[in-house]
Amino acid sequence: MTSTPLPSDIEIAQAAHLDPIGDIASGLGIAPDQLHPYGRDKAKVDLSVLPAPDGEGAPGRPERRRGRLVLVTAMSPTPAGEGKTVTTVGLADALRVLGERSVVALREPSLGPVFGLKGGAAGGGLAQVVPMEDINLHFTGDLHAIGAAANLLAAMVDNHIHHGNALGIDPRRITWKRALDVNDRQLRHLVSGLGGPVNGTPREDSFQITAASEVMAVLCLATSLEDLHARLARMVVGSTPDGRPVTCADLHAAGALTALLRDALKPNLVQTLEHTPALVHGGPFANIAHGCNSVVATRMALELGDYAVTEAGFGADLGAEKFLDIVTRASGLVPDAVVVVATVRSLKMHGGVARGSLDVPDAESVGRGLPNLLQHVRTITDVFGLPAVVALNVFPSDTEAELDLVQRSCADQGVRAVRSEVWARGGAGGTDLARAVIDLCGGKGREGGAAGRDGGFRYAYDVRSSLEDKLGQLCRRVYRADGVELTPAARRQARALEDNGFGGLPVCVAKTQYSFSDDPRLLGAPRGFTVTVRDLTVDAGAGFVVALAGSVTTMPGLPASPAAERIDVDADGRITGLF
Amino acid sequence: MTSTPLPSDIEIAQAAHLDPIGDIASGLGIAPDQLHPYGRDKAKVDLSVLPAPDGEGAPGRPERRRGRLVLVTAMSPTPAGEGKTVTTVGLADALRVLGERSVVALREPSLGPVFGLKGGAAGGGLAQVVPMEDINLHFTGDLHAIGAAANLLAAMVDNHIHHGNALGIDPRRITWKRALDVNDRQLRHLVSGLGGPVNGTPREDSFQITAASEVMAVLCLATSLEDLHARLARMVVGSTPDGRPVTCADLHAAGALTALLRDALKPNLVQTLEHTPALVHGGPFANIAHGCNSVVATRMALELGDYAVTEAGFGADLGAEKFLDIVTRASGLVPDAVVVVATVRSLKMHGGVARGSLDVPDAESVGRGLPNLLQHVRTITDVFGLPAVVALNVFPSDTEAELDLVQRSCADQGVRAVRSEVWARGGAGGTDLARAVIDLCGGKGREGGAAGRDGGFRYAYDVRSSLEDKLGQLCRRVYRADGVELTPAARRQARALEDNGFGGLPVCVAKTQYSFSDDPRLLGAPRGFTVTVRDLTVDAGAGFVVALAGSVTTMPGLPASPAAERIDVDADGRITGLF
Repeated sequence: MTSTPLPSDIEIAQAAHLDPIGDIASGLGIAPDQLHPYGRDKAKVDLSVLPAPDGEGAPGRPERRRGRLVLVTAMSPTPAGEGKTVTTVGLADALRVLGERSVVALREPSLGPVFGLKGGAAGGGLAQVVPMEDINLHFTGDLHAIGAAANLLAAMVDNHIHHGNALGIDPRRITWKRALDVNDRQLRHLVSGLGGPVNGTPREDSFQITAASEVMAVLCLATSLEDLHARLARMVVGSTPDGRPVTCADLHAAGALTALLRDALKPNLVQTLEHTPALVHGGPFANIAHGCNSVVATRMALELGDYAVTEAGFGADLGAEKFLDIVTRASGLVPDAVVVVATVRSLKMHGGVARGSLDVPDAESVGRGLPNLLQHVRTITDVFGLPAVVALNVFPSDTEAELDLVQRSCADQGVRAVRSEVWARGGAGGTDLARAVIDLCGGKGREGGAAGRDGGFRYAYDVRSSLEDKLGQLCRRVYRADGVELTPAARRQARALEDNGFGGLPVCVAKTQYSFSDDPRLLGAPRGFTVTVRDLTVDAGAGFVVALAGSVTTMPGLPASPAAERIDVDADGRITGLF
Repeated sequence: MTSTPLPSDIEIAQAAHLDPIGDIASGLGIAPDQLHPYGRDKAKVDLSVLPAPDGEGAPGRPERRRGRLVLVTAMSPTPAGEGKTVTTVGLADALRVLGERSVVALREPSLGPVFGLKGGAAGGGLAQVVPMEDINLHFTGDLHAIGAAANLLAAMVDNHIHHGNALGIDPRRITWKRALDVNDRQLRHLVSGLGGPVNGTPREDSFQITAASEVMAVLCLATSLEDLHARLARMVVGSTPDGRPVTCADLHAAGALTALLRDALKPNLVQTLEHTPALVHGGPFANIAHGCNSVVATRMALELGDYAVTEAGFGADLGAEKFLDIVTRASGLVPDAVVVVATVRSLKMHGGVARGSLDVPDAESVGRGLPNLLQHVRTITDVFGLPAVVALNVFPSDTEAELDLVQRSCADQGVRAVRSEVWARGGAGGTDLARAVIDLCGGKGREGGAAGRDGGFRYAYDVRSSLEDKLGQLCRRVYRADGVELTPAARRQARALEDNGFGGLPVCVAKTQYSFSDDPRLLGAPRGFTVTVRDLTVDAGAGFVVALAGSVTTMPGLPASPAAERIDVDADGRITGLF
C-alpha cells in the first residue's frame, strides 16, 4: 500500500509509454497480415488466429485450447466500487511479473457513461489499459457499427410495413428497438412515424443504449463470422397480430447486418500500462444481457496466452452466473479458476455502513458484510464446482485490522483471500493473487489442457427444464431465494415462448445488481425472499430468454451536471476531463 | 471507348492490387508519425502536415500554397447520371499519367444510400477509390463520430430542460436535430420525451441523416482543431420563448463534442485504382449545406500535391456556387481551374428525352440540352471569373455524331469541351482532359502560387448586403431568375436573423438540383421565373444562413426493395452485393 497519492487515471494513462502495437502483436505470434492497425496504439486481430472451430457450442463439451482461463467476478457491487476491472488488468500484469504469458480480455466501454456520471471504463490507477482516451471514445468503432446494424434493421422493419407489410407485422407488436450510444432519457418512450402517409406508420417506439441492443449480445456470443450471420438471422423483431414471430431473416436483412459487423467482430488489441496484451472487445449489459466481453476475444486470449484473464459484469450472481450458464453453453469455455473481488469498503456497505462513513475504521461492519462475499464464493465453488480465490482489492483507507479480519474470516470458512494492491502498485502489487491463481489452475509448469479442468464443473440449472423451472433452480441455488414467482402475464409469456420453440434456451435474469434478491435494499446475504419475474422475452439471436425481475432501464439518462461539461481538448489535441 | 463490357464496380475494386497505405503516404512526404493507419489500406493523416495557419478565413485573401486547385462540378444532374466522381478520380489519375503529382480530395459516402437505392459513392469503372467496401461501410468512423456529437448535444439540450432549464429553452423552439446514418423515414416526425416526468419532456422531435447535420458542415469548414471548437460552440440549438438563440457553448458542450470529433477531423488517405493518393473526408449535403469535402482535406491535397482535384455536389449552381461563395470565403481556397462534367445522356434529358429512350441516338435533343451546360460554364467563367473546361464523360451508348456535336457547339461558344473516357480506360482515358486542365492552370512547369490565380475571381454576391439582397443577387446571376421572393414568414425570419447578428453570413440555398429554378420540371436553361424562399434558418457554426426554396428531405427513406436485402458477406469475409 503506497502512501503517496497517485495522479488521476487520465494523467497516468497519458504519461504512459506504449509499446508499438505491432510489437505487442508479434510478441503474441500474430502474423503481420493478421493485424489491422487502427491508429498507432490499437489494432484489430483477424479471426484466423483462432484454431478451426472444434465442437464449440456443444453444451458441456471441453474445448481444445492451450491457455488457462481465469474469470474475474465480484461480490455484490456497491456505490463504493469494487475495482473488478482494476483487478483483472492488475492480475494479468502480475502474471507477467511472474514470467507467465498472460493476456487480458475485457469489455469495451460505452460512450454513454463516459459523458454521463460513471466516466471511462479502462481500469484505474496503475492497472489500466491504454490508450485510455481512445478506448473510451469511439475506440475502433465497434459500438457505432453495432448501433448502425440495429438501426438498419429497425429502418427495414418500418420500411417493410410502409411498403405494404407483406409479412403482416403488427406495428403494436414490434419489439426491435433502435440504438444510440448516448445517455438520453428523452428517447425512452416516443411516438414515431408521424407526419402523414409518406412518413411511415405512427406507432409507439423506443431507443436503447447500444450496449443493451441484442446485436451487442449476438456479436459477443458469436463464435465465427458464419455463426454471427446465423444469429443475426434468428433475431426476432416483432410478431404478427396472432403472435407469430417475425425475424431478421424474414426481412432479408441478415447479410447487410453481417456486412456492417464484419470488422467489428475482430477483437481489438491494446496493452496495459505494463505492456501486457489486452483484447478489449464487446460490452453487453450484465442484466438484460450476459455482461461479458466477446467469446472470440476470450478464445483468442486463450490461444495467444498461457493465461487468459477475463471479467464478467456486476456480482457473481449476475455476470459470473451468465458466463457459466450462457457463455459456457454457447462456447464451451469453462474457467480454470475464478477470482471474486471484494473490498473492505463494499463489505462495510453490506454490513450496513452508509456511503459517507466508509473512511471510518469499522471492522465489525466489515464482518457483518462478509456473508455477501462468502455466498458469491460458494456459488462458484459449490453450485458451479469451480475453484475460487478472493481478491481483496486494497484501498488507501483500509486498516490492517479490517484487511486481516477479512482474510482470517475467509480462512475460517476454508476460503483463500489474498490482498491485491494493483491499483497503487501495478502488477507488482498483485503477485500474491497471481500465485494463488496459478495454484488454482494446477500450478506452474502444468501442461495446457489439463485433465480435470471441467471435471467438477456443472451448470446452475438443467437447460432442458421448463422456463419456470430453470428460473426456480437459478433463484434457489444462486440467489438462495425460496423460489421464483411468475406474474400471470409472465406465465402466459413463458407458455407462448415455449410454444414458439424457445423453451430450450438458457435464461438471462435482469434484476438489481445490488442484492442477491430482486430488492436493491436487501444487502448482505438475504434469506426468506421470493424473486418475482414480471416479463419474459426472447433474444433468439443471442440465444437466451430474458426474465425481468425488477425494473431495468436500457436507456440511461444524464445527471444534472454531466461529465461531458468538463471534457475538453487542449491545443495539442490532448483530451482533458475524462476520468 | 472500349467495347468490352467492364465487370461490376465491386468486382473491379476487389480485384485491385493496392499499394501499402504507408507507401502512398511516404510518396507524399508524410512522416510516419503523421500517419494513423486504419486497417491495412486506409489511414488518417495528422493536421500537422498543413502549413501553419496564415490568414485563412480572410475573405478574398489569396492563401499561400504550393499546389494548384482544380474544382470538378457539373451541369444540372439528371437520373441518367453525370459521373462527376468518376471524372474527378480519373482526372487525378490522368494527371499522374502525364507525370504530374496529383492528389484527389473527395467527399466520403453515407451508409444511408449504400443500403437504400443509390449504392456506394467511390467512383466507378476504372476510376474508383479503393478499398471500395471499407470506404462505403463505416470507413474510419467519421460519420458515426459526427452522429455521436450531434446526439450528445441533443441529449444535453433535453437533459438541461429536464433538470430545471436554467437557460429557459423553449421546448417548442428546439431546432437541433438528432442524427443517424441510415435512411429511415419513420424518424422524420416524432414526439419524444413521453412516459412521465422521469423520462424527459414531451415535445415534437426529428432525426436527420448524419450528412445533413450541421456538425458535418462544421467539420468540413473547420480549418483547424481550434476553429472546429469555436464553430461547434457557436452552433444554435434553439431559442427562448422570446427568440433569443441558445448555443452549444451555453450548454458547455463544445469541449465534449470537440473530443468526439478530434480524430474525425483528420483527413482519410486512400488511393485510386491507379494508386493516386486520395483524401476522402467529410460529406455534407449539397442543398441544406455546402456539398464539398472538408477544407482540411483540400488544403492537405494542395500541400502534398502539385494538383489537387476536388469535387462539389450537384450542378455548378449548387455545389460550385457554394464552394466559391461559402468554402472560399471560409478558407481562402480559390480554384485555379474548374471542370464542368457533362454527358450526352444528361444533355438529352435536358433536351426533353425521357429516361427510357436515352440509348436512342438523337443529336437534335442533345443540342436542345446544351443551354443547360453552357449556363453552368458561364456561371464559372463570367460570374465567378474562373477558367473552365467541359469534361464530356463518354458512355458506351454515345455516338460519334452526338459527341462531336457537343464539342463543336461548345467551341462555337468559345468553350473548350474535351472527351473523357476514364470510366472505361482509367487515367489513360483522361489525358486530353488533364492537358486542358494543366493549360487552364497556367501550363506545365509553371511555378506554384502563380500571380493572377485569383486575379479574376469574384464572389456571386456582396456578403455585406442584406440577406434578401444576397439571395436576389445569387438568384439573378447564377440561376438567371428574374429575382427572389421571400414569403412573409421568411421575411420575418430574415429580420430576426439580422437582429440576432447573423445578417453578415453568406447564404446557402436549398433547392432542387434538377433545375436552375426551384421547379424540378424546368430543365435546360429556363428564363422568366422567380425563386420563392419559404424558410430561413441559421447554421451559426457552419457560418451560413440556409434558405429553403422548395421542399428538402433531410432524412431519406428506403425504397420498396432496399439494396440492403442484396448485400451479404461470403465465407471468406468478402462483401457482396455492394454497388
